[in-house]
Amino acid sequence: MIETPYLLFLGDAADPLAAKVAQGIKDWRPEFAVGQYRLPGCNADLGLPELSIAEAVAKGVKTLVIGVANRGGVISPSWKSVLNEALDAGLDLASGLHNLLRNEADLAVKATALGRALHDVRVPEIAYPIANGRRRTGKRMLAVGTDCSVGKMYTALCMEKAMRETGGNATFRATGQTGILITGEGVPLDAVIADFMAGSIEYLTPDNDAEHWDLIEGQGSLFHASYSGVTLALIHGGQPDALVLCHEPGRPHMRGLPDYHLPELEALRDVALIMARVVNPACQVVGISLNTSAMDADAALALCAETEKRMGLPTVDPFRHGAGRLVEALAGL
Amino acid sequence: MIETPYLLFLGDAADPLAAKVAQGIKDWRPEFAVGQYRLPGCNADLGLPELSIAEAVAKGVKTLVIGVANRGGVISPSWKSVLNEALDAGLDLASGLHNLLRNEADLAVKATALGRALHDVRVPEIAYPIANGRRRTGKRMLAVGTDCSVGKMYTALCMEKAMRETGGNATFRATGQTGILITGEGVPLDAVIADFMAGSIEYLTPDNDAEHWDLIEGQGSLFHASYSGVTLALIHGGQPDALVLCHEPGRPHMRGLPDYHLPELEALRDVALIMARVVNPACQVVGISLNTSAMDADAALALCAETEKRMGLPTVDPFRHGAGRLVEALAGL
Repeated sequence: MIETPYLLFLGDAADPLAAKVAQGIKDWRPEFAVGQYRLPGCNADLGLPELSIAEAVAKGVKTLVIGVANRGGVISPSWKSVLNEALDAGLDLASGLHNLLRNEADLAVKATALGRALHDVRVPEIAYPIANGRRRTGKRMLAVGTDCSVGKMYTALCMEKAMRETGGNATFRATGQTGILITGEGVPLDAVIADFMAGSIEYLTPDNDAEHWDLIEGQGSLFHASYSGVTLALIHGGQPDALVLCHEPGRPHMRGLPDYHLPELEALRDVALIMARVVNPACQVVGISLNTSAMDADAALALCAETEKRMGLPTVDPFRHGAGRLVEALAGL
Repeated sequence: MIETPYLLFLGDAADPLAAKVAQGIKDWRPEFAVGQYRLPGCNADLGLPELSIAEAVAKGVKTLVIGVANRGGVISPSWKSVLNEALDAGLDLASGLHNLLRNEADLAVKATALGRALHDVRVPEIAYPIANGRRRTGKRMLAVGTDCSVGKMYTALCMEKAMRETGGNATFRATGQTGILITGEGVPLDAVIADFMAGSIEYLTPDNDAEHWDLIEGQGSLFHASYSGVTLALIHGGQPDALVLCHEPGRPHMRGLPDYHLPELEALRDVALIMARVVNPACQVVGISLNTSAMDADAALALCAETEKRMGLPTVDPFRHGAGRLVEALAGL
């Protein structure tokens, strides 16, 4: 678990997209986003207070989060003086980059000497159990997609926001690096050893109050040849009461797989439900989340209406239209 | 890749079942099984020549394989003098135990000094790629099961034997520790990192001659809450042209999951086929393999006939009746 709140390190981000991890933290956990730290030439700006390391410490910051992705996922030499200064000043460091903080000798030595934590959220830090399949108390929603990167994390986060705004008892459960940095905890599922995948999700979503909802971030797709095993482990470890189908209209092919078309929503609905009912016979598909970010407002609404009619399920772009109708669809489960 | 042939170390096996890895090697790769080495009190006997380390070396043995499972999967202190002697005499060591050869300091130091290999087949030794889903040349059969440990490895091995006996071009592809020790190579899929599972199976079953069959050992079950993700990665990485459904009649519940019933063969057929056709639209379910080892001969034959009629697919216990009918069912694919 990463200590909050955060100072968001934007480094020398080439453009706003390079700082999307930091943007996600600011959007979804604004209470964690105390300030930003930018280097000369940084082309991203979250509009947060620009804080020095000392100012951040004075404001109660506990962790400097590397909220920027470099080409190649490396820890840039130009960042090093700031990262070392942060450790010296009493902050932990957190990163989702491929290259690990712990493998930078200077940072590792200093962190050990000073008792600071280096959180590399790509790497599991827990010995997860093998899944036991036992029914747990509380309710769970899982976002499943026609493809990777179609908005499963945003769907779960939007639903959490909508539920909390109406007094609901809900927790977003992160299963990927960005989600883990946003919330400060979670399972980096793509890095878990095969035998423990489903068990890691049982661990992530334990027994809870009867009316509590875990809103579980999905990963991959049952129809994605590279990552489908991860998705099925999420379905069986997550034991969902509700599935929300996520889709981005207009994709020419599956992400990274030029030979593969996306499945129809009907096919996703049918096979995800068969698999989910192995562990939870009461599971229902409750709604559809479309990522319409590439469409104009009218076209987005028209597509949602058309999809809703075809599928007989509430259909929204939760980031654009709010997730209220998806949350309403959970009532009674 | 483990160098062959082998000296099979049976240690102080409590009973024949404890030496089932060695038995599997003798059954399926008799040309690798040059001799056995037993300690006082050993209650297993493969009927192979009893060889000293020196005699094994003289007969061309390259690797001593620990073919026995201890309680807890540990490397027993009483084995150490033999293992050290084997290294001194020029043999490599191979083991599928949970406790690793490489973590035994004396063995690790000696192996490094002498240039011997310590093969811990539970641990992947290759950085597998992420699956790319591209169609490969050659043919592939995958054994899928209603549960874990229902005979998927034996089914694939029996089919390999039957195909080779009739001049066919076929290769058993191991995906678990016993299979890897039998053949000397394979992927320990349950220990692969989630993101690379399907890619490891693509790596295991590369382009091949048009008429060559890879006979892929299955793992887990799409219906097993703990391990289903591994199974789906096998289906999508394996790109099967043919599926054989494997089942053991009479199980009261899924292995290790007392709350879960086994699925019907029809359910397995339907969902496995949907998933396999994502990567290979021509995939067919070609037959059924029943593990009837707990039944008498007449009951086994009757159940096969009844299942064959119900499912409309060739149904045999390949270990008992031979795999010829399953192999015939591959013709024309």
